[in-house]
Amino acid sequence: MDDTFKNLESVFGEIIDLRRAAALLEWDERVCMPEGGVQAHGDMLATVRRLEHEKFTSRETGELLSEAKERVKGLDRDSDLHRLVTVAARDYDKATRVPAAFVSEQAQTVSAAHHAWVEARSKSDFSIFRPHLQKVVDLKRRYVAFFPEVEQPYDALLDDFEPGMKTSEVQEIFDTLGSRQVTLVQSLVDRPQIDDTVLTLPYAEKDIWDFGVEIMTSFGFDWARGRQDKSAHPFATSAGPGDVRVTTRFDASQPFGLLFGTLHETGHALYEQGLGSRWSRSLLEGGVSLGVHESQSRLWENLVGRSLPFWECFFPRLQKRFPAQLDGVTPRQFYRAVNKVEPSLIRVEADEATYNLHVMLRVELEIALLGGEITVADLPEAWNGRMKSYVGVVPDGDAKGVLQDIHWAIGLFGYFATYTIGNVISVQLWDACHGVEPSLDDQIRRGEFSTLLAWLRTRVHEHGRKYQPQEVVERATGARIDPEPYLRYLDRKFREIYGF
Amino acid sequence: MDDTFKNLESVFGEIIDLRRAAALLEWDERVCMPEGGVQAHGDMLATVRRLEHEKFTSRETGELLSEAKERVKGLDRDSDLHRLVTVAARDYDKATRVPAAFVSEQAQTVSAAHHAWVEARSKSDFSIFRPHLQKVVDLKRRYVAFFPEVEQPYDALLDDFEPGMKTSEVQEIFDTLGSRQVTLVQSLVDRPQIDDTVLTLPYAEKDIWDFGVEIMTSFGFDWARGRQDKSAHPFATSAGPGDVRVTTRFDASQPFGLLFGTLHETGHALYEQGLGSRWSRSLLEGGVSLGVHESQSRLWENLVGRSLPFWECFFPRLQKRFPAQLDGVTPRQFYRAVNKVEPSLIRVEADEATYNLHVMLRVELEIALLGGEITVADLPEAWNGRMKSYVGVVPDGDAKGVLQDIHWAIGLFGYFATYTIGNVISVQLWDACHGVEPSLDDQIRRGEFSTLLAWLRTRVHEHGRKYQPQEVVERATGARIDPEPYLRYLDRKFREIYGF
Repeated sequence: MDDTFKNLESVFGEIIDLRRAAALLEWDERVCMPEGGVQAHGDMLATVRRLEHEKFTSRETGELLSEAKERVKGLDRDSDLHRLVTVAARDYDKATRVPAAFVSEQAQTVSAAHHAWVEARSKSDFSIFRPHLQKVVDLKRRYVAFFPEVEQPYDALLDDFEPGMKTSEVQEIFDTLGSRQVTLVQSLVDRPQIDDTVLTLPYAEKDIWDFGVEIMTSFGFDWARGRQDKSAHPFATSAGPGDVRVTTRFDASQPFGLLFGTLHETGHALYEQGLGSRWSRSLLEGGVSLGVHESQSRLWENLVGRSLPFWECFFPRLQKRFPAQLDGVTPRQFYRAVNKVEPSLIRVEADEATYNLHVMLRVELEIALLGGEITVADLPEAWNGRMKSYVGVVPDGDAKGVLQDIHWAIGLFGYFATYTIGNVISVQLWDACHGVEPSLDDQIRRGEFSTLLAWLRTRVHEHGRKYQPQEVVERATGARIDPEPYLRYLDRKFREIYGF
Repeated sequence: MDDTFKNLESVFGEIIDLRRAAALLEWDERVCMPEGGVQAHGDMLATVRRLEHEKFTSRETGELLSEAKERVKGLDRDSDLHRLVTVAARDYDKATRVPAAFVSEQAQTVSAAHHAWVEARSKSDFSIFRPHLQKVVDLKRRYVAFFPEVEQPYDALLDDFEPGMKTSEVQEIFDTLGSRQVTLVQSLVDRPQIDDTVLTLPYAEKDIWDFGVEIMTSFGFDWARGRQDKSAHPFATSAGPGDVRVTTRFDASQPFGLLFGTLHETGHALYEQGLGSRWSRSLLEGGVSLGVHESQSRLWENLVGRSLPFWECFFPRLQKRFPAQLDGVTPRQFYRAVNKVEPSLIRVEADEATYNLHVMLRVELEIALLGGEITVADLPEAWNGRMKSYVGVVPDGDAKGVLQDIHWAIGLFGYFATYTIGNVISVQLWDACHGVEPSLDDQIRRGEFSTLLAWLRTRVHEHGRKYQPQEVVERATGARIDPEPYLRYLDRKFREIYGF
């Protein structure tokens, strides 16, 4: 390898080391840190992140990348090296457009906004958060201005989470999903409701945890390269494919939240573990986008974990752990219970049929805010109006409405769309895998997941960040990101469950 | 504050952030990391440490320190600022004398030596380790040459762990301790031996753990600023005084090893928690030396935790947890059992009466190796000969002899002495505190440790690295480091226990 690439490899290695260190320090903050460590952790993370950013945006990195771009010109555009340089150059371009002073101003604004949001939510009073959110929105407008070439302002925000994706594509997805999901939900609420009391009986945390671990192991989670812990909010993180960590939480009022949290985060973890060592310590390490990442978590949580074949296999095992609670319950009854559709206020508690509607509402509001079609002051009303027409319920206060999610408070605009993109991709992948592996359901019914995992490894995981998200989907499924399969899936599943 | 000091504060803050991050990453490696994370952790730590070293030894830091040295000339030499600049300038001078190429060569040599040592110890075959140890010793000689001003070569190594301490002072300590501890031990082995079978009965790990936690809490360990976990080898570490972590381990054949491990590491942790925020993120943060650090761990482990007043308070509580094992045992019997003196082969298992003899042996060998009076090849014989004359026992193989400790394999020469320095200081502090607090034993008999902790806080902990170790001891006790009190303590304690 010539010197340019060797030097670049060494610079990227150092950058990845710092990113991994930051990931572990954040994991520590959320899983291990005693309360007295808040200040020290904040300082450490700020320093590690700043050094990473300085290193990445340094003139040295820029010069190496310029040389590298020249060198790869003769290579196949799909070769690893060409792709690496392309992705790195794109990341570098984005990172260097944003001045350090802006990053630091944003960090301060967001820190204050987060603080205000916590208070506002606890008092269910949007007015406390409003001036801070205004500042965040103003910052986002200035951020967008660093990318004057975009078609729509929102493109610049979306691209940070879903590289290459355009606002128009997202809007097209929601145009297709929105009205048809609303119609589906309206049909479902007219049907006799499912009795899910079995899910709200008392269950010992440890037994549900152990059951989750049993399933993680069956899915193929490699315990030599990962672990599971508890935290206030479930998440997955990684310090490279050799050390991938998930968390979950227990709430006695929703004991199976622990289990589905485990399955969801395990989906993310299988992606990270599946990267293998091919891209290790290079800029192609990691998931390609939040949407593709979410496709993995939703696939294992919902398409596997909320399927009938899955519960035909695992319900008897669950029943053995909880005879008192589950005696006389059938796998199908349990399957129906975990798939109950009920329009509700909170996104993170939403079922599969309503989930995207919660997301659509947020994405529409973000685009309208950024485009100036609505103001920050309009938000609560706009929120509640859309809740009424999309989901059919209206919050009795801002805490369960416009203040429910942390994203805007911590500066995440353009992020929500990736939840729906993930849902959509998950079914496309699922269908594609079924196409070549017709016995997949039977395998799942036997608790075997190795074929599914191997297919995802080859088609998605192993590519790391080499391809754009759309390319990953096209290469795996033969089609671009398309909401039709998701709608067909919902329709088929919930018509069968609700019997109409 | 003028710009020089402000800039210095910011540079030091960043350096401390990186050191704290490295400490947490190491903690993670030993407590949490799945085995697949070895490579990633190694990479991360190397990068974080290298960046810290580069930052500290940078021209920018050097220039700021030069300016600062000028600025503080008019100040009281004992003022915080003057001391900070003095300590920082000393650290900087030491760090910049050693070329980066040397540091990197040493890291490689030591990594290979560590590997060889693991194999050599498992096969009890010194010859596997010998060539590697030779390289380590050669490196240490070259290291010493970076400090041509030292009186004796060993001074340069010792100074890294015990700033300002001279080899001649250490030798003086051992000259006093050695023969008298040998004589004491010889008297003890002639006495009827203590029956300590009560310590080797089966005890549930969790109950001993909980008992240890109860004692930690009584000692004053602040759980809001720390935690305890399990690891293969007990240790204490910190990311500043707000986040101080200890570990311990359980071995069913020595169940109380967990407890004394807890007490020992808690001593270290109380020191780190006691720094307060005064030196936070400055170069004066942290313990002043390994010896003073060890004085804290040994004080809480032995002077408190192996004292009769302590067991008069805590034995009934222990008995309540373990009625089956401890019914009919008296506090005094238990106290005698945990103080049984038995010449043995392994330093880390040694009792108070023999411990320093193990250390003396190693320090003598290190000095002789460095001075060329013995060669690496001579080590096993030299080791066994000294074991015979100092401790009275001889290992039947190198695994339990010259290969037992990891220190030399990982390049730690000059470190062992600090164990004895710690023992010596612990009794000086203990006596000084008793001098002003005559009711200390009664307080301990009631399970009250706040007076003792407050005294240590004011006299030792709160100074951080402001004073040299000798100064800390002089300010706290009125005397320089002196082994006589330790000898008197051993004599009094073991004559009473063994009745002569």
